[in-house]
Amino acid sequence: MKNRIVTISREFGSGGRTIGKKLAQELGISCYDSELIHKIALESGFAENYIKDAGEYAPHGFLASVLSNRAFGPTNEDYLWEIQSRIITELAQKESCVIVGRCADYILRGKADCLTVFIHADMAFRADRIIKVYGEREESPEQRLKEKDKRRAAYHRFYTDMKWGHAQNYHITLDSSALGIDKCVEILKHLY
Amino acid sequence: MKNRIVTISREFGSGGRTIGKKLAQELGISCYDSELIHKIALESGFAENYIKDAGEYAPHGFLASVLSNRAFGPTNEDYLWEIQSRIITELAQKESCVIVGRCADYILRGKADCLTVFIHADMAFRADRIIKVYGEREESPEQRLKEKDKRRAAYHRFYTDMKWGHAQNYHITLDSSALGIDKCVEILKHLY
Repeated sequence: MKNRIVTISREFGSGGRTIGKKLAQELGISCYDSELIHKIALESGFAENYIKDAGEYAPHGFLASVLSNRAFGPTNEDYLWEIQSRIITELAQKESCVIVGRCADYILRGKADCLTVFIHADMAFRADRIIKVYGEREESPEQRLKEKDKRRAAYHRFYTDMKWGHAQNYHITLDSSALGIDKCVEILKHLY
Repeated sequence: MKNRIVTISREFGSGGRTIGKKLAQELGISCYDSELIHKIALESGFAENYIKDAGEYAPHGFLASVLSNRAFGPTNEDYLWEIQSRIITELAQKESCVIVGRCADYILRGKADCLTVFIHADMAFRADRIIKVYGEREESPEQRLKEKDKRRAAYHRFYTDMKWGHAQNYHITLDSSALGIDKCVEILKHLY
């Protein structure tokens, strides 16, 4: 039987990761979140490959990491992107699972049977949630959210050339602040 | 009991209107589609009010309808927009219903208990569908779709200053080509 993958993109603070975890639990499959994939990449491929490839590309690789300018060759982020892409592709080949973040929808396009999801929420819900989940910071929650959104949109745009948060890019998008986290899980479970 | 409204925005050819009609039928409430509201507006308010107001604004009203330039006062579309807004607001006050198109989500913002929906589909699905539903034309279905999308996005943008098709503007968006029309109806019924 072919694996079925749920990819979840989400606004920071929308509860997308929680929805992914709950959904995976209810479906009895694994959930790989963005941080986990990043960690796997750093621990496994990134360290070895980066050192290896950086050697091949040097001195461009070195300059790139200093100047972060692609005119001088791939950057650290480019290496990491490549390794993360490989990890995500391998996960999808190995098992049915939920993958949160890391442009998994784009990476698996045409390669796997995916249900592509985007979760968003209004500012008040997200501000409240990031304080509860991540604690207070010096910056206001609104500032933190704006900054994170900007980074995610830019990252997504750069690596996928798709507009982040455009309904047309997903099979389903859900407003977790209006519908509630549990209702989102329920709908996705039903769709899966 | 307060009325509950489902507003459906949709890409041309995505089956949004069909989904609205089926949903309304299943919920035992009325469905007002874009064409119907337009017709009501033309038959009732538009004719009288336009003639009346055009008189007050003349000669600007006259010039506006010739030049379609808002520097000379409201255009035909502006009058129609105002009357359609009134009709949609009255419908929401009168009964629970499904409203397809006409920026009902924006018009009812903060005025009614709405579930806001956007339906989209891929090009092949839509091209196939518009030929089935509306028949062949001289232009290719892709050209017709592109033209219609452009008009809808511009209309929406002009009157609401919201970006059409942005996930963040809707409680839920669904890809009818991936999920199927009946599944979309099922999910919306479940959410309602």
